[in-house]
Amino acid sequence: MAYPTLGEAIAEIRPADSKAMRRAKARQKQLTKPPGSLGRLEALSIQLAGIFGTERPSPQGKTVIVAAGDHGVVAQGVTGYPQEVTAQMVLNFLGGGAAVSVMARKVGIKLMVVDAGVATPLPEHPSLHVVGVGMGTADITQRPAMTRQQAEACVTAGIRLALEAVETGADILGTGDMGIGNTTASSAIVAALTGKSPVETTGRGTGRNTEEMAHKTACVERALLVNGPDRDDGLDVLAKVGGFEIGVLVGVVLGGALARRAVVLDGFISGAAGLIAYSLCPDAHDYIIASHRSAEKGHKVALAHMKLRPVLDLGMRLGEGTGAVLAMPIVEAAAACLSDMATFAEAGVSDRESVGESETMAEEAR
Amino acid sequence: MAYPTLGEAIAEIRPADSKAMRRAKARQKQLTKPPGSLGRLEALSIQLAGIFGTERPSPQGKTVIVAAGDHGVVAQGVTGYPQEVTAQMVLNFLGGGAAVSVMARKVGIKLMVVDAGVATPLPEHPSLHVVGVGMGTADITQRPAMTRQQAEACVTAGIRLALEAVETGADILGTGDMGIGNTTASSAIVAALTGKSPVETTGRGTGRNTEEMAHKTACVERALLVNGPDRDDGLDVLAKVGGFEIGVLVGVVLGGALARRAVVLDGFISGAAGLIAYSLCPDAHDYIIASHRSAEKGHKVALAHMKLRPVLDLGMRLGEGTGAVLAMPIVEAAAACLSDMATFAEAGVSDRESVGESETMAEEAR
Repeated sequence: MAYPTLGEAIAEIRPADSKAMRRAKARQKQLTKPPGSLGRLEALSIQLAGIFGTERPSPQGKTVIVAAGDHGVVAQGVTGYPQEVTAQMVLNFLGGGAAVSVMARKVGIKLMVVDAGVATPLPEHPSLHVVGVGMGTADITQRPAMTRQQAEACVTAGIRLALEAVETGADILGTGDMGIGNTTASSAIVAALTGKSPVETTGRGTGRNTEEMAHKTACVERALLVNGPDRDDGLDVLAKVGGFEIGVLVGVVLGGALARRAVVLDGFISGAAGLIAYSLCPDAHDYIIASHRSAEKGHKVALAHMKLRPVLDLGMRLGEGTGAVLAMPIVEAAAACLSDMATFAEAGVSDRESVGESETMAEEAR
Repeated sequence: MAYPTLGEAIAEIRPADSKAMRRAKARQKQLTKPPGSLGRLEALSIQLAGIFGTERPSPQGKTVIVAAGDHGVVAQGVTGYPQEVTAQMVLNFLGGGAAVSVMARKVGIKLMVVDAGVATPLPEHPSLHVVGVGMGTADITQRPAMTRQQAEACVTAGIRLALEAVETGADILGTGDMGIGNTTASSAIVAALTGKSPVETTGRGTGRNTEEMAHKTACVERALLVNGPDRDDGLDVLAKVGGFEIGVLVGVVLGGALARRAVVLDGFISGAAGLIAYSLCPDAHDYIIASHRSAEKGHKVALAHMKLRPVLDLGMRLGEGTGAVLAMPIVEAAAACLSDMATFAEAGVSDRESVGESETMAEEAR
């Protein structure tokens, strides 16, 4: 298969299927439960109907794409962990010992591990996908993270990876990240694209105290000042203050939308990637499900900007795709209820009154 | 196996293993992630260590026990659905068409369906467990729901069912309910045991408007006035204003605690059952995990009284065990992370500083 360019992908992404969503809404009212009693799951199921173009969606395979990359901004001392940890954690993903590895194994989700631009050389590994656009970004407090060409190459690689995952059976894609320093880049991206100040988008990351956080916030401010990213140009924001793994995740979102698959966003870093994808292609929004609300405060800003409500709120702030993995069984359950539950008529269960039915009929007639 | 009486069960329930919990806390700090970054999952994993008596808990089978019963209070018009729906839904559970059936199948959870006291005669079914204590409770606005003997018989049956589930492999038990009118009984139980007023414990249930809710609240007030349940005697509260399925679920909680298994409580009705179990045996608390926050307002009151924080908040208010089913994969993931993640030393990942290590050592020395 020939994979699309970024421009082709953006041009080909279509909104979700509104007719299937309308049929799904009508079907929800006929299922054997009080209307609305499945809460958030009902809205999710209707979104899934729109994504898969049927009122009985039955997504099968689940793959989380975990992209890793390094960040030159670590030179500013924005994080407590040494840069080598990015590469060490990639090996931990491959070895099955990381949180996301353990969770994905437990729940039956495939992991696709991607070296999107790790600074430390990694050994070849049959399960490691190498993007090869660079080895760590430049320090964004001094200059752009990468060139525009590199930014486009990352995103294009992400689109390709998403489409490869879909070809091997993934109906639900998840995003995950690893990159020492990447909360700093993400805070800059969220500030650039939402217009909020770095104070509102910068959280503690893996840092421990107030001074570390004040310093980190100042670095984000400086990155924006030095680079002046154009908030109307998502690719410019990615190139100026982003990261290689973030670019790959932008592509995963776009590739998922292009293939009409559900894309479950992880936390803050994935949220920043989601924002860039949304800015490049607003229609991609229909395919995005926010898995959880990260404890990183900038995540809330990103979700609010995209009008996304997270499924989970577990006080997590690990990244790696752990939130996406945890939300996937709930996404599947939402689809299964819509598709497989008996209707009142099928099960011979008495409905409350005919009110519900006439509402449904009126809705279907629209 | 001889099953215990209620008194024997209460006497034999032990608190969770605090030494295993301490070892689990120490282990959490050595796992390859920033400390605390798995948020709620870390606390859950430590609770699971205490329940299973090991810092590497690995719960396997999962069973949700769905108990159905009818309520005489429906004569007061507290709900929009006819009483036959309870029996119809039991058949729907057995037929696999109900929400909890669909979800449990999707996630790989066993369902145990229990006729705890349905008013409509049900056909025999190989998968239906029949308690046979009564066929629907009396109208609690007029007289006690059941006798004290019936209350004890329900709870004892629930203990037995939980132990049977454990014998066939369940390490994680879930509670689920079905019973037209049972939100009214649950509101009365929660008010009786927490001392809150019926206005604070009565929600809309499956009702639709303000008048219906005011009427329902008045019925709860009347039930408490007429019966005067003794808040220091959980069995009295169950007998006076409870329900047969609620009694069975009280037993499921106690049986799970007795067998040292995790008990995942569903929503409001299960919360009322949990409150009774907690009042009969405070040590049972250690084994309870609150799956979700129901949209029924009395649920919040019940959870606050037991100091339980729900795992999920999805605006659901269906019951049946649907919340318990959705939380179980998260409970399993929490255990798996604690048990199976690599430590910094095992994975050769650099930890931040020795601060973390010395804290851990100090904790272990305690």
